[in-house]
Amino acid sequence: MSNSIHPLVPAAVAGASRREELVRALVRGDLRFHELPKDLPAEEAAEIRRRAVERMTETQLDNIAYHSLDVQRASKRNCENFIGVAQIPMGVVGPLRVRGRAADGDFYVPLATTEAALVASTNRGCAAITQAGGAVVRVEDVGMTRAPVFRTSGIQQTQQFLQWIEDHHEDLKRVAEGTSNHLRLLEVRPYTFGTTVFLRFRFDSGDAMGMNMATIACDRAVNDLIEPATGVPCVALSGNYCVDKKPASINFQEGRGKRIYAEILLEAPILHHQLKTNARDLVEVQYRKNLLGSIAAGSMGFNAHYANVLAAFFIATGQDPAHVVGGSMGVTCIESRGPDSVFASIYLPDVPLGAVGGGTTLETQSEALAMLGVSPDPDRPGEAATRLAEILGAVVLAGELSLMAAFTSQDLARAHQKLSRGVEAPRS
Amino acid sequence: MSNSIHPLVPAAVAGASRREELVRALVRGDLRFHELPKDLPAEEAAEIRRRAVERMTETQLDNIAYHSLDVQRASKRNCENFIGVAQIPMGVVGPLRVRGRAADGDFYVPLATTEAALVASTNRGCAAITQAGGAVVRVEDVGMTRAPVFRTSGIQQTQQFLQWIEDHHEDLKRVAEGTSNHLRLLEVRPYTFGTTVFLRFRFDSGDAMGMNMATIACDRAVNDLIEPATGVPCVALSGNYCVDKKPASINFQEGRGKRIYAEILLEAPILHHQLKTNARDLVEVQYRKNLLGSIAAGSMGFNAHYANVLAAFFIATGQDPAHVVGGSMGVTCIESRGPDSVFASIYLPDVPLGAVGGGTTLETQSEALAMLGVSPDPDRPGEAATRLAEILGAVVLAGELSLMAAFTSQDLARAHQKLSRGVEAPRS
Amino acid sequence: MSNSIHPLVPAAVAGASRREELVRALVRGDLRFHELPKDLPAEEAAEIRRRAVERMTETQLDNIAYHSLDVQRASKRNCENFIGVAQIPMGVVGPLRVRGRAADGDFYVPLATTEAALVASTNRGCAAITQAGGAVVRVEDVGMTRAPVFRTSGIQQTQQFLQWIEDHHEDLKRVAEGTSNHLRLLEVRPYTFGTTVFLRFRFDSGDAMGMNMATIACDRAVNDLIEPATGVPCVALSGNYCVDKKPASINFQEGRGKRIYAEILLEAPILHHQLKTNARDLVEVQYRKNLLGSIAAGSMGFNAHYANVLAAFFIATGQDPAHVVGGSMGVTCIESRGPDSVFASIYLPDVPLGAVGGGTTLETQSEALAMLGVSPDPDRPGEAATRLAEILGAVVLAGELSLMAAFTSQDLARAHQKLSRGVEAPRS
Amino acid sequence: MSNSIHPLVPAAVAGASRREELVRALVRGDLRFHELPKDLPAEEAAEIRRRAVERMTETQLDNIAYHSLDVQRASKRNCENFIGVAQIPMGVVGPLRVRGRAADGDFYVPLATTEAALVASTNRGCAAITQAGGAVVRVEDVGMTRAPVFRTSGIQQTQQFLQWIEDHHEDLKRVAEGTSNHLRLLEVRPYTFGTTVFLRFRFDSGDAMGMNMATIACDRAVNDLIEPATGVPCVALSGNYCVDKKPASINFQEGRGKRIYAEILLEAPILHHQLKTNARDLVEVQYRKNLLGSIAAGSMGFNAHYANVLAAFFIATGQDPAHVVGGSMGVTCIESRGPDSVFASIYLPDVPLGAVGGGTTLETQSEALAMLGVSPDPDRPGEAATRLAEILGAVVLAGELSLMAAFTSQDLARAHQKLSRGVEAPRS
Repeated sequence: MSNSIHPLVPAAVAGASRREELVRALVRGDLRFHELPKDLPAEEAAEIRRRAVERMTETQLDNIAYHSLDVQRASKRNCENFIGVAQIPMGVVGPLRVRGRAADGDFYVPLATTEAALVASTNRGCAAITQAGGAVVRVEDVGMTRAPVFRTSGIQQTQQFLQWIEDHHEDLKRVAEGTSNHLRLLEVRPYTFGTTVFLRFRFDSGDAMGMNMATIACDRAVNDLIEPATGVPCVALSGNYCVDKKPASINFQEGRGKRIYAEILLEAPILHHQLKTNARDLVEVQYRKNLLGSIAAGSMGFNAHYANVLAAFFIATGQDPAHVVGGSMGVTCIESRGPDSVFASIYLPDVPLGAVGGGTTLETQSEALAMLGVSPDPDRPGEAATRLAEILGAVVLAGELSLMAAFTSQDLARAHQKLSRGVEAPRS
Repeated sequence: MSNSIHPLVPAAVAGASRREELVRALVRGDLRFHELPKDLPAEEAAEIRRRAVERMTETQLDNIAYHSLDVQRASKRNCENFIGVAQIPMGVVGPLRVRGRAADGDFYVPLATTEAALVASTNRGCAAITQAGGAVVRVEDVGMTRAPVFRTSGIQQTQQFLQWIEDHHEDLKRVAEGTSNHLRLLEVRPYTFGTTVFLRFRFDSGDAMGMNMATIACDRAVNDLIEPATGVPCVALSGNYCVDKKPASINFQEGRGKRIYAEILLEAPILHHQLKTNARDLVEVQYRKNLLGSIAAGSMGFNAHYANVLAAFFIATGQDPAHVVGGSMGVTCIESRGPDSVFASIYLPDVPLGAVGGGTTLETQSEALAMLGVSPDPDRPGEAATRLAEILGAVVLAGELSLMAAFTSQDLARAHQKLSRGVEAPRS
Repeated sequence: MSNSIHPLVPAAVAGASRREELVRALVRGDLRFHELPKDLPAEEAAEIRRRAVERMTETQLDNIAYHSLDVQRASKRNCENFIGVAQIPMGVVGPLRVRGRAADGDFYVPLATTEAALVASTNRGCAAITQAGGAVVRVEDVGMTRAPVFRTSGIQQTQQFLQWIEDHHEDLKRVAEGTSNHLRLLEVRPYTFGTTVFLRFRFDSGDAMGMNMATIACDRAVNDLIEPATGVPCVALSGNYCVDKKPASINFQEGRGKRIYAEILLEAPILHHQLKTNARDLVEVQYRKNLLGSIAAGSMGFNAHYANVLAAFFIATGQDPAHVVGGSMGVTCIESRGPDSVFASIYLPDVPLGAVGGGTTLETQSEALAMLGVSPDPDRPGEAATRLAEILGAVVLAGELSLMAAFTSQDLARAHQKLSRGVEAPRS
Repeated sequence: MSNSIHPLVPAAVAGASRREELVRALVRGDLRFHELPKDLPAEEAAEIRRRAVERMTETQLDNIAYHSLDVQRASKRNCENFIGVAQIPMGVVGPLRVRGRAADGDFYVPLATTEAALVASTNRGCAAITQAGGAVVRVEDVGMTRAPVFRTSGIQQTQQFLQWIEDHHEDLKRVAEGTSNHLRLLEVRPYTFGTTVFLRFRFDSGDAMGMNMATIACDRAVNDLIEPATGVPCVALSGNYCVDKKPASINFQEGRGKRIYAEILLEAPILHHQLKTNARDLVEVQYRKNLLGSIAAGSMGFNAHYANVLAAFFIATGQDPAHVVGGSMGVTCIESRGPDSVFASIYLPDVPLGAVGGGTTLETQSEALAMLGVSPDPDRPGEAATRLAEILGAVVLAGELSLMAAFTSQDLARAHQKLSRGVEAPRS
């Protein structure tokens, strides 16, 4: 916690003069931000850094300093060279009825965003879904992947190498899983051409998103087992066939993290009153925008704005926001049913997600997860993360429905403009 | 600001009984979150919502309540159904020497992240760049795009329609630009097949990211001019040929927002001492990971982890984090020079970014922008956003260099594990 | 023409003993196929090679020898080391009513294929189109492209280089166009990152497909102008940003060669009687196969089988069959109209095509072009190629309609099996 | 065989008057091409059609008529509405040393093409490879795929359906394999979203390319088993998740038909004398063209011109030329070795290919296959097709090497121009 504003923080443990000396050393460049004395309490170090930055950049960082985090933990587990926080506005949507396996009931969902209209619009979608009986959601736990890349001397060595990998799956499993109680090796998928071999390890990582666990497990498998036994050198622990935080076909095809499906049948009254739209127009926007438009654009995302909802949900619940990249892929479908109803679905093949680790232990994020009733149970590993993913699926569906409906209304942007962003804007 | 903890906030303006009544109405579901009385002060409304949520979800949201935002503004301009904030840890990296046009000098860059090792690793890259004389950066202001989609009766009407659009470019320009003093229409790019026509409007939006401005301008052009004059109906103001927040070839080809280039020559001493690597290994990781690995994965991102750095920079500086999707595309190059040097570059074709609007006016984000000396000057529109983009380019380069170097070291993941995340982990 | 079988060929000009000597030299490996004496008549050389091959491979190549080509010309302009021909069965479809600009009327279209059912199926589509009044077709002559790739020292030199290119467009045009009377330079589109610059030259090449002309023109522009003036070295005359014969977004976006659009309205009687289908089923196959299926597959081709029809048309008319690659991209749309009609369209953005040069001058191909009334008129350059492309568009549409209709019928594959390939099979 | 020119054909069996009557009926449009009397001999029917076409299009088709095919067979098995042939010039390259499993030795390879320089250039590559000891080639028989698409009512039915498919793999195998002695079902890979399910059946089809066999087998499995048992309707036997003849990620990832790898080490003397190049320049062209250029273009083909060689090889040997589309995908690598050597490789993930069926039985194609020693042996199913694929791999490598080398030479296009296409031109 910051000293400057926060009233509950105890007096600084360092003397004012030592503090000033360290600030000056940072400002002069004699010290770098991460070179402050190890014995300095984390809060103290944060303030010294912040003061140095203020001096060097001639700014006041009072708001950045204003927070309620456990600095000791945050600066060790989440963010080095800690100086404070970015405060991201958090709104709530709901009730949202979710009919999943791990999440079955009504939820109030926190979304952290700086973009006007997103929360309001999503909330409208939640109302429609809830009134229609709730979104059916299923989540497939594909698992987290990491793909080291190796260099061979050519076809012959590659074939021997791949044969060795196939023959030693149980050994690889043993070594990899030895690095964590929460990790199970599910598959090693090879891909090769020329003198390059990728081995895409796929792990069940329980309630954790699992990227770091997967990396550590791969490192052990590579360094303790594969390299010594085969003599084939690993060029990099991540060879981009994983692939993390880049849009990619392999993840669209094979999935990564959680693969999420959600759907709802919306009948005329809900379309008309809740969403101010109708089946015919919705289906046409779906056709020309989500299908033909994305085809024209050469896109991997056949949807309206998965990324918006994901980003807000991820930031609120302590996920890695860079994983929005994979989450932006996927396909929305809206099909006509009967005279004036639609059957709508969303599909996201690549959503890395966790209920423990990463940002989930931070104070505000932890509260957000609590709002959703997400709390890992050691006896049912993976269930909390699945619950989180199921709720996410329903919120994404809500976001799609509301924005798609907005496109069918004539006065959208003008209303947006007049009401100073009080209504949803087409943001995708 | 929240009432519950914050000491500076004046006493609530609503009587306790009315407040309790409203909380109960929310809990019972008689009121929805956005239906609180309009006369209620924003802070009061936030607290009522939060208390209702606490009661319904049986949680305590004290940390979410703990913030220093102007609730009135944030709940109107950034986040409806406001209940508080997500606190995202912010660290600082630098000094980072940037040799751009609008940013020329040494910078201290705020990064907001929950993922351990990112700040430390990027900071190492900053040191290498600065010591090598600074990153050369150039930014091309491609402009913001929005592509309405139209339905015609077929080839003949499409051709007439496109001819009309071509003939009336000046009229379109006038109407579109009439919606804002900060907008200039640069191009209308058509794409068509079957009975569908996309018109991709591209705008210079000065220092704003411009998505909302572009939407409003398109709406005016479509509703006041195109539809009445041509009789061709617009199916949706956004037809996904824009394309916003989905990975897509059109943006890779044509660019969107800012197109960012940065580069640096790194000689042996810096490679060895700062980055603990060498030219040969770096070049090989580049080859097998960033090129071949991304090819194998069918990816649009030929880089190590642009998305990580972008997400942290975007959250710190008030950008739309969903735009990390576009920013994850692009190409890193690392080429051998002389006996043991490398020439490294990054390229990001699709980085929407702004120095005004959106999240930039929030208190902590505004301070972060101030740290970078980013403050819009009405006399030089666009320069502040360009400055921001140039600094971003240099930080992305720093992040790439450090992570790529980490891959070349043998004991990476194990060090990572031992030091409890004190050193950079391969996160991509 | 071959000597061995063909009765009209005059006696060989070489003595039998010299011939035998050369055959033996080839068989022994003392001579290579292209090293036969220059004074040897082409037909003689062909026979010597063929006999050598027969001897070395212990085969009889009587059918390969059986042809009516002018060997002198074919072996110089089309195929080195000439030994004979592959005979590809040619069928005819039609009458096919085409309502284009350069092709307006009924056509009988030659298709050369070895795959059963393709001609029969396409013919059925032709009947449907003709009966419905003819396919409306439009062709956009995008032009042929070639993109040399250059190496610079980095951002600064790249910017100077691109500025020079922009400033000297007229000079480039003059030099490039100086290589042929039939070439006009339309655009030079740059793309750059790192130390690499691509310049995508786009040319109008009249009735020629234009790849060789474009290459020669680029070579002149690069060697006589760009390299000497800028000092920036060209690494390869083709830098794959052209891009030729690889599926690629740039061609999907920008087009290449001819961009072809065709469409037709089909009412119930034609759907029922000609195509044995109905609107509802056709629209559903379109939706789940051409749209969702191609999305699922990560394909650039949102169609049923453009490539089949293109290959057959290309081989019959002397086009480069490797250009089927680009032609396989594109989007078919089939939309419901009224109670039981459909509006169907095809779109091919990347169809390189010519009415002169390449294989068009060969004897059988020339006859096939004559069947279509395609004969270049120097006074109307480009019109013959456009006519060819328009007819192609209509045939592709015919092929799509018939195959799509076949999918809607229940007993397709079984009929196929029973009738020994007498009915169309789903080949895509 | 045609009557009009060919001297060996017996007199027409139909009387001249009946023939003339049928020709007139075709010309008047009273008969369609496929409606000629069934009792008419195939050669007779071909001539009648041809004469009708000649009259209607006012052309002479003497060369198209000139061929040596068994018309009865060709018009039934390969091409309906038969009127004659396209003669495609065939050249020969070699000797080409191939070090595969099924093909181990020196080969003389037929290539049928109309594009000048291709054969000469490829022949140069063959010389380099042979002199360097031969190309190491390996072929993985991935198998032929066909993916019917189904419609369900949503998540729940989809899950039940997929469970049923999983539970009945043995039944599916039995039914599918019951349609042919040469077919083995290897895998059923599902992909699903919304209300759509794709089942990608993958088959070993021995020496056949297998597309028709796979279709028939799927039809049986769908109609006899899946639909009756599950009640889930199949919308189309091919749902484009197969995916045939469209460039697609699924095939790049999973492979299709044959997956081909070939490689060679080329030392300085061969680079200098055979290919007129050097290691440094070759590696740079590889880097900037095949890697960066294809990345810039958003291509799925990271090679110089696989499609050219494939098209020529496919046409010569009776393959389906539309399959060049899949074959255009893949990755060439050229890596520096030692002071002035390179290690070059090619990789093609998607090459459908057969040694029986389709065009392979045609007279000229059959001779071409014989040249390669490709003749199916019932006791070793698949070996002939593998042999063919191995030879193809080596020729593709030859084509890549020669063209890549040509790019490194300064006077390429000018030489090309001067020598009237006597030297290789950069055609990709």
